[in-house]
Amino acid sequence: YLSKRIVVLPGDGVGPEVCGEAVRVLKAVAERFGHRFTFDYRLMGACAIDATGSPLPEATLDACHQADAVLLGAIGDPKYDNNPSAKVRPEQGLLALRKSLGLYANIRPVTAYEQLLEFSPLRPERIAGTDLLIFRELTGGVYFGEKGRTPDGTAFDHCTYNREEITRIAHRAFRAAQGRRQQLTLVDKANVLETSRLWREVVQGIAPDYPEVAVDYLFVDNAAMQLILNPRQFDVILTENMFGDILSDEASVIAGSLGLLPSASLGDGAGLFEPVHGSYPQAKGKGIANPIAAILSAAMMLEYFGLPDEARAVRAAVENALSEEVLTPELSPGASYTTEQVGSFIAYGV
Amino acid sequence: YLSKRIVVLPGDGVGPEVCGEAVRVLKAVAERFGHRFTFDYRLMGACAIDATGSPLPEATLDACHQADAVLLGAIGDPKYDNNPSAKVRPEQGLLALRKSLGLYANIRPVTAYEQLLEFSPLRPERIAGTDLLIFRELTGGVYFGEKGRTPDGTAFDHCTYNREEITRIAHRAFRAAQGRRQQLTLVDKANVLETSRLWREVVQGIAPDYPEVAVDYLFVDNAAMQLILNPRQFDVILTENMFGDILSDEASVIAGSLGLLPSASLGDGAGLFEPVHGSYPQAKGKGIANPIAAILSAAMMLEYFGLPDEARAVRAAVENALSEEVLTPELSPGASYTTEQVGSFIAYGV
Ligand SMILES: CC(C)[C@H](C(=O)O)[C@@H](O)C(=O)O
Ligand SMILES: CC(C)[C@H](C(=O)O)[C@@H](O)C(=O)O
Repeated sequence: YLSKRIVVLPGDGVGPEVCGEAVRVLKAVAERFGHRFTFDYRLMGACAIDATGSPLPEATLDACHQADAVLLGAIGDPKYDNNPSAKVRPEQGLLALRKSLGLYANIRPVTAYEQLLEFSPLRPERIAGTDLLIFRELTGGVYFGEKGRTPDGTAFDHCTYNREEITRIAHRAFRAAQGRRQQLTLVDKANVLETSRLWREVVQGIAPDYPEVAVDYLFVDNAAMQLILNPRQFDVILTENMFGDILSDEASVIAGSLGLLPSASLGDGAGLFEPVHGSYPQAKGKGIANPIAAILSAAMMLEYFGLPDEARAVRAAVENALSEEVLTPELSPGASYTTEQVGSFIAYGV
Repeated sequence: YLSKRIVVLPGDGVGPEVCGEAVRVLKAVAERFGHRFTFDYRLMGACAIDATGSPLPEATLDACHQADAVLLGAIGDPKYDNNPSAKVRPEQGLLALRKSLGLYANIRPVTAYEQLLEFSPLRPERIAGTDLLIFRELTGGVYFGEKGRTPDGTAFDHCTYNREEITRIAHRAFRAAQGRRQQLTLVDKANVLETSRLWREVVQGIAPDYPEVAVDYLFVDNAAMQLILNPRQFDVILTENMFGDILSDEASVIAGSLGLLPSASLGDGAGLFEPVHGSYPQAKGKGIANPIAAILSAAMMLEYFGLPDEARAVRAAVENALSEEVLTPELSPGASYTTEQVGSFIAYGV
């Protein structure tokens, strides 16, 4: 049996609610499989700014560095979105945490669940069977380059990548493809960007190490179209930070709800696991937020702990909730369940 | 009656075929409405590299500067795509032409044609009635910033924007919204990028000049999702160069075929009109390329010449081809027509 220390960052909006259900499920797993998980709750995001003035307090960062894994709800508050020039913003906390933990690989699986095909804006026959994995680089590119204003008022954002930054995530993506359908698509804009040309060079250089993986290259504009036209063509998609941000939100339409999509951010130290959805402030406290994305993120955490049976049990319990239609309102306009009811049903099912 | 000098850049792949049909339609318009259009054919793209070593020969650029408008087919060749580090590439010609003509506003209308709803991968009820206009900034941002490699091998691309670059396209977008459904959406990533924060500031500053236009702000990741979830919510979308490249290709899925989407690039001098689709080399010479995107680009040119009746006549003839199912194979898997047959049918109909 395993003993693991998990830092929980509930964050803002519906973050605390969905985190609560993910923790409930992790506790059920610990009990059923005989593990010991401890949960250490910390502040990050707008709630941390309100309480301490900083979106990522020192104490939170220290705790994350000592943890075995981090579970994050969501961060963000409209009062900052509408005032993007505010000096202190919740997003800074998330970006600083990613950087500090060295979480360079953000992994976002997208699955078209048979039970939910009707909820996608896409035609069921186009998406049925889709099962893809997006590897988004998370600590480089335009997110972390120099940015500011020149004396004459020009704004700038610098995008940079070096070989090492590309190599380490590319190997992870190739290994993932090896264990799946052996197909890797690099998405870039190599007909325009120098950083993209470096991505292509590095991936072309690594490809021979994985002879069984078929590699192809797609420009990002074309990829944004192909993802909707024919998502089944993709197995593992590898891309840089900004393109990955856009494509992974876009790909969420395949699953039928952003409330279903989990993510794992991995690097040198503790992994971080969070739903792809945001803080959804309008839904806060109403019990209508879908906890499945957070719960599936917890399943990715179990996988990361080297507990595949436990992860499988969680996924099976989620699939059961889908089949039995124990679902929050966005997926069940008729008879719907609350966030807590969905979480409890899944926890009970593991 | 008007006399106009049009430079035609057929380019690569299917470019010459679709341009041929757009010219056929423009000639029909000239005859029916009593105008005089002259057509001056020039080299650009891979064909220009093959012939002269340069993707944008001096003679082509000079001709464009003296023209009233430019009609472009498509550029690009797989031999360059697969070798992105080639020193000379067709795309350089297009980017240099945009810059030299000062074509800072790229306008891409996206319409869900009633007759073609069945061809979209999206559910018909989600897209019916969609009619949106993307204003993509075309001569700034990461496309034209400094790029290269540092001595230690790091690749970089600099994204910059100044107030003037944003102001001039924003005014165009606001004026377009005034004449439509009075709604403008700025798409940016203001929670991360300094250039996006400047875009927001400038647009917020201009908005009071257009009190009847409702403005909203969307992060690009969310926009990529909303465009598929509920495209009818958009009237005019305004965005920077790279985001516009991605979102406009993505939005093409609404129309059912990239072969239907026209574009206009406007600025200080002569406007440039081109289909959104690329050179589609696999289809070259087969007579299967859809000429409608090029023909609708010609209609945008007529509008630009101040000939709204003529533009309307072309659009009506296109709608008639859609209704009568005089269509290329991608839209008519059963009984299809060739590029030339579709072009002739439309030219005959104006
Ligand atoms: C909140 C924001 C900074 C973040 C990002 O852009 O990375 C979010 O959109 C995400 O995808 O995790
Ligand atoms: C060919 C390429 C340079 C171009 C761009 O990225 O602008 C194309 O994708 C477009 O959208 O016109």
